[in-house]
Amino acid sequence: MKIKVLTIFPEMLRPMLGESILGRAIEQGLIEVDLIDIRPYSLNKHKNTDDYPFGGGPGMVMMAQPIVDAMEAAMGEDFHGRRIYLSPRGRTFTQKVAEELASEEELILLCGHYEGVDQRAIDLVIDEELSIGDYVLTGGELGALVVIDAVSRLIPGVLGSEESPKDESFSSGLLEYPQYTRPREFRGLQVPEVLLNGDHAKIAKWRKEQALEVTRRMRPDLIKETD
Amino acid sequence: MKIKVLTIFPEMLRPMLGESILGRAIEQGLIEVDLIDIRPYSLNKHKNTDDYPFGGGPGMVMMAQPIVDAMEAAMGEDFHGRRIYLSPRGRTFTQKVAEELASEEELILLCGHYEGVDQRAIDLVIDEELSIGDYVLTGGELGALVVIDAVSRLIPGVLGSEESPKDESFSSGLLEYPQYTRPREFRGLQVPEVLLNGDHAKIAKWRKEQALEVTRRMRPDLIKETD
Repeated sequence: MKIKVLTIFPEMLRPMLGESILGRAIEQGLIEVDLIDIRPYSLNKHKNTDDYPFGGGPGMVMMAQPIVDAMEAAMGEDFHGRRIYLSPRGRTFTQKVAEELASEEELILLCGHYEGVDQRAIDLVIDEELSIGDYVLTGGELGALVVIDAVSRLIPGVLGSEESPKDESFSSGLLEYPQYTRPREFRGLQVPEVLLNGDHAKIAKWRKEQALEVTRRMRPDLIKETD
Repeated sequence: MKIKVLTIFPEMLRPMLGESILGRAIEQGLIEVDLIDIRPYSLNKHKNTDDYPFGGGPGMVMMAQPIVDAMEAAMGEDFHGRRIYLSPRGRTFTQKVAEELASEEELILLCGHYEGVDQRAIDLVIDEELSIGDYVLTGGELGALVVIDAVSRLIPGVLGSEESPKDESFSSGLLEYPQYTRPREFRGLQVPEVLLNGDHAKIAKWRKEQALEVTRRMRPDLIKETD
């Protein structure tokens, strides 16, 4: 899978791509992530990428021209994939949307800044707006990283066998059961007895009950959804 | 406001703190962000921070000891604030939660990895689990950055007068109206006439209508909530 990110802050993103599971996936060629700086595509002599909004109001708006030209360069001649603008107005990004995107050949993620981007850029070169949550962020860069992380974990081979995504929150429709590791006692708190006795059926039953209980307490809406 | 982040990947986070509005807020001393590496707190001779889960299953679990010791060092002697673990099990982070956190003196954000952290660390040193959305990420680092970004924008003085947060999505209960900037025509697409005539009452009315229409189409649930 190829992912391209259009941003005015490529250097902010680069270190996140070098670490952990994502860094290893890129190194192994399982995914390819290109950071594309929008600024050099500006035809403005100062290479500006933003300007005042028509109709007034606070803040600046990212101009259509540098974005559209950067997008067309990123798409190349034979583009097959989805072009996404990270935006609080978008469809809410969830694990289901991540699964949907994981089957695309190519993703291009546009990161906005300031008061947003000129609507004509969205109309011309964006297939879908996605929002990672109901909060306001300074730019789309964190959203792009969230999408890249969640999607790339679903690409076959990215997670090793020791990191199977199957038990994780949201994949099963339930939140995760509590986990414990050594030592058996820490500051007076014991690991639950059932996890120590090696009875795998009992352990599976306990974990299922715990996952249900955590989900009921924290996110009853998830249980309704799977009913 | 002081924010401390407990992580095993401090270098991954550092560049995100240097750019844009957040970088400027830190530079101006409006917020202080400390990245605290959990690993040196491990009493294990190899400075390990994870171990196999009791009861079996895929993946590794972060040990309680390094986390609890790092947290206690981060808290110091006289801690007043909230200790948050970024986790898919947590309460959903929204703009309202960001507003709530913005009034805290201090936040400590714990980033987990692998299959999560030993439940006893959560029981001992965490006030609340927060989730930035219904998707699975490799670690809590992106969640911590999302919380830092959304919260710090609400600290007085962080946004300049030209970047007032008042008109933004979610603050008003509606998504944002479309924005346009120069030129008036781009690839055959015109800026809506109403934005060009300087009639501020008409512009405000058009924007309100557009915001309502975008919200109805994309997120009807937000309109129900504000009813």
